[in-house]
Amino acid sequence: MRHDKARCYLSQRIEMRQHTRTIEISTRGKGLYDFTRGIDSWLRDCGVSTGLLTAFVQHTSASLTIQENADPDVVRDLNDFFSRIAPEDNKLYRHTVEGPDDMPAHIRAALTLTQLSIPVIGGTLALGTWQGVYLFEHRSGPHRRSVALHIIGE
Amino acid sequence: MRHDKARCYLSQRIEMRQHTRTIEISTRGKGLYDFTRGIDSWLRDCGVSTGLLTAFVQHTSASLTIQENADPDVVRDLNDFFSRIAPEDNKLYRHTVEGPDDMPAHIRAALTLTQLSIPVIGGTLALGTWQGVYLFEHRSGPHRRSVALHIIGE
Amino acid sequence: MRHDKARCYLSQRIEMRQHTRTIEISTRGKGLYDFTRGIDSWLRDCGVSTGLLTAFVQHTSASLTIQENADPDVVRDLNDFFSRIAPEDNKLYRHTVEGPDDMPAHIRAALTLTQLSIPVIGGTLALGTWQGVYLFEHRSGPHRRSVALHIIGE
Repeated sequence: MRHDKARCYLSQRIEMRQHTRTIEISTRGKGLYDFTRGIDSWLRDCGVSTGLLTAFVQHTSASLTIQENADPDVVRDLNDFFSRIAPEDNKLYRHTVEGPDDMPAHIRAALTLTQLSIPVIGGTLALGTWQGVYLFEHRSGPHRRSVALHIIGE
Repeated sequence: MRHDKARCYLSQRIEMRQHTRTIEISTRGKGLYDFTRGIDSWLRDCGVSTGLLTAFVQHTSASLTIQENADPDVVRDLNDFFSRIAPEDNKLYRHTVEGPDDMPAHIRAALTLTQLSIPVIGGTLALGTWQGVYLFEHRSGPHRRSVALHIIGE
Repeated sequence: MRHDKARCYLSQRIEMRQHTRTIEISTRGKGLYDFTRGIDSWLRDCGVSTGLLTAFVQHTSASLTIQENADPDVVRDLNDFFSRIAPEDNKLYRHTVEGPDDMPAHIRAALTLTQLSIPVIGGTLALGTWQGVYLFEHRSGPHRRSVALHIIGE
């Protein structure tokens, strides 16, 4: 592990502050919905240059994930994987009243992320080159999903 | 994605502060233990109206998850799912000295969450209507589990 | 749940501040790489006694996990488990151009953590006795991985 002191800097203590908001994302069935730009534009509106941004999905049948934003096949293969390990098969589950896709949706949500915190460095999200932030929809029908955002910084 | 500016507000900068504590949860075998109310009541004690609350489980055979708090069958089906993908079968594992449930417990913990951060907006946790915060116990016997809590806000 | 008021304390409000840095970890194939000491030593450099430390991995084929740091067999069994549920088998995936280990790597990353936040209490990470913080490498070849660190506290 390399300790690069030059990249470890103390913030200027100008004024620590917080912002919150809720964004809504419309989904059209199972899959990943990139909302990196939505977070980015809110971050710029807030004018925070160093801080911590948190996204929290307010549902139990949708979740968050960070994945490669380059090849759309990655997203399809990921979706297939979850269909293999948590198939829509009512014989496997007790909770079936909300449809065959509901219990698999809760399982997929438990296996991925409900919340993500991303450091903000130099005014931008400290994402890697290929990273995109996705809402992961686990239900078949269209839904309107809420993600609570919080930022603390200066 | 809808940008609802009215819901994006700047906090009042009254006084940024932190609180920490550790809570203990007694478990009686595998399953989910709702401790949403424990976090909520601590949040009220601290009097933070805008901030970020973090829960961190201090174990490697128990974890955290957010799930539906309405139908108890969801919790049972979730438990069954993990038993299917990480069964108690000593032939599958090298690490067997701590009992047949120990290595599956580490796997279940790796697949779920060690830590959860939840925005605090308007004096309450920004949870969705059906979301509950659960300690996920992965071992068969009774245990006493510690969860470190941290809140920063104003 | 036990409410131990004595362990719930208000921080002194001396001065809230932030630090950020990026650390690099060299990997030599699939497996877990403990970097708890790297985080710990940075935490001591920053001199933060109460706060929240966040680690964020800037890749989509490596991730983070907290696991038992006592028995190396736990780490081997964990690796085997992921090979069973997301095997290197090109027939299962569309995204195969980057090698047979790439799509399984994205799946493993989705199932584990991209980010971890750990409370800092009394000048140290609030880890349990057996917890270690690991970079989880999912690719077969050697890589250089970046983890962005952020701390806020006083």
